[in-house]
Amino acid sequence: MKSNGYRPPGPPDMETFYPDLSPRFAAFLAQLRGRNVAVVGHARPDGDCIGSQVALARLLRARGHEVACLNPDPVPRRLQFLLDGLVFLSPDKFEAEDWAAVFVDCADHDRAGQAIRARFPAPAGAIDHHLSNGGFASHNFIDPASAATAEILAGMMLDNGLPVDAVTAQALYTGILTDTGQFRFNSTSRRTFLLAAELLTRGANPTQAGYELYERETVGKLRLLQRFLASLRLESGGRICLGVLPAGVFAETGSLPEDTEGLVDYARAVDGVEIGGLIEERPEGIKASLRAKVPAYRLDLVAGQFGGGGHACAAGLNVPGETLATFYPRLVAALTNRLH
Amino acid sequence: MKSNGYRPPGPPDMETFYPDLSPRFAAFLAQLRGRNVAVVGHARPDGDCIGSQVALARLLRARGHEVACLNPDPVPRRLQFLLDGLVFLSPDKFEAEDWAAVFVDCADHDRAGQAIRARFPAPAGAIDHHLSNGGFASHNFIDPASAATAEILAGMMLDNGLPVDAVTAQALYTGILTDTGQFRFNSTSRRTFLLAAELLTRGANPTQAGYELYERETVGKLRLLQRFLASLRLESGGRICLGVLPAGVFAETGSLPEDTEGLVDYARAVDGVEIGGLIEERPEGIKASLRAKVPAYRLDLVAGQFGGGGHACAAGLNVPGETLATFYPRLVAALTNRLH
Repeated sequence: MKSNGYRPPGPPDMETFYPDLSPRFAAFLAQLRGRNVAVVGHARPDGDCIGSQVALARLLRARGHEVACLNPDPVPRRLQFLLDGLVFLSPDKFEAEDWAAVFVDCADHDRAGQAIRARFPAPAGAIDHHLSNGGFASHNFIDPASAATAEILAGMMLDNGLPVDAVTAQALYTGILTDTGQFRFNSTSRRTFLLAAELLTRGANPTQAGYELYERETVGKLRLLQRFLASLRLESGGRICLGVLPAGVFAETGSLPEDTEGLVDYARAVDGVEIGGLIEERPEGIKASLRAKVPAYRLDLVAGQFGGGGHACAAGLNVPGETLATFYPRLVAALTNRLH
Repeated sequence: MKSNGYRPPGPPDMETFYPDLSPRFAAFLAQLRGRNVAVVGHARPDGDCIGSQVALARLLRARGHEVACLNPDPVPRRLQFLLDGLVFLSPDKFEAEDWAAVFVDCADHDRAGQAIRARFPAPAGAIDHHLSNGGFASHNFIDPASAATAEILAGMMLDNGLPVDAVTAQALYTGILTDTGQFRFNSTSRRTFLLAAELLTRGANPTQAGYELYERETVGKLRLLQRFLASLRLESGGRICLGVLPAGVFAETGSLPEDTEGLVDYARAVDGVEIGGLIEERPEGIKASLRAKVPAYRLDLVAGQFGGGGHACAAGLNVPGETLATFYPRLVAALTNRLH
């Protein structure tokens, strides 16, 4: 395969994945030597966040660092299989001082919450793939063309010949798997698949990841899906599809708020629909998730009108004090406006 | 990457995917020269069947053959995007004589139906990945360790440096994607991902495939899913989960029999469930699909008790003259028996 100039100390005939980032990452690791390191992830962590935190924490621990994984929210049940004994702390449980911090998968400094931001006002490093990341750390490893933060991290580790054992490989693989929607979002590239192949060589197990992520649903989650499907309504001549979860639905179905993950994809999946949405009525107000089939609709801007944000194809928002009855027509109007 | 001895005329630094099959495939193609070729797929064709037929037909046409794609059943709506003008014929529409036949993704000679078997009693070739395939053609390219027939075909084409344009790459990619359950069934290997990477280089488009396969659902299909979810019942202490589709459900929900594809996966996906099943009541009798999380339950044997068959983790059966009321307890008993 083609060489891109930079020739790292990895396996001799392997492609270089990140010719620009990888040498800088090696230098960053050298500079961190002797420091204790907090590996920080974002609120409501997903597979890419937890997978990247696990992989980076294990790498640093193997290099002799004392390491702590910090998250404002707990690790979701379905991602616990990645931890292999690694403990994740909420910021209020972390009291050590003078630690360096590396933020992963955080589009900005605030994504890890105010408490973590206040404790680490000047992060040593940031590894991320969000387009909007302006680089808030001293050393930024940001590539918006990558499908996942775990893709960048995997590439930089392999490029530099750093140790990737089976647990680390599985964490990185899971980050890539989840953030690509099982290898189908438009960021999925040749590099994504080559990295997946290399991670399998190092022990990543697609079947285990698939089982843990997609074959351990609760009956409550399936009841919640059923309720969501029953609520789906087409708007704007079938170009928008919205589903709602009214207050009390979690208790009624025996499900949890984290079980809403993935539901919005069913709204988008309808033929002819260009934007799908999920609106949840919670005690504190409305929470909504939006998904578009193409980036042109800039859902980050729609969410921004309600104080939210995100990506062009996937955005979210929280509006305190509203109900389904008041919010639904406002959202339909805002989305319809984007279609024109 | 490692060489396996055989060095085909492909790109110079690419891995050899099928060191045993690929030279034989090159010889087979040479031997077919001058023949008209029927590319045959199986009944109720899936993505691997149609993708492999399209890829092989295009390869042969590019080499100057007159080609026909034959299937006992029509190409499902969601796979039409692969055809690019290629016409698929049912066997009764095919009247030419003295054509060679290559069967793809057919575990045995009967899988393409009696009419096709009768017309081609001695197939020239068979390309397949089913464990039970004993080799019914003159030239058999069978590898049960491969995740898909399209994986074998892609590997043999790339190994031999044969032309793979964007349409062919997409067909092969789609075969791999669908037969691995989006890269997660246990046949998914390092080779699977390396081939996916190479197919992307040649123009395969994961986003388009994902859109066509998973983001063009009808409202009727979602209503059918809703009905199926509502019907799910746990049996054998939660180790079996069965859902049913009673007679008339397609008309009631505005869905089609082909919309049942994928439903059974929801039954298997429940945590603690080891075997999931879908039972359909049709005018002619019962049709059931079974899925296990691990191969030890040998669902092919359970299906065999009712005249069906398949793989260890995925099997199906048809029982004429039964109803849901009579068949349900018989199936629960047979499955429970396998759990012990």
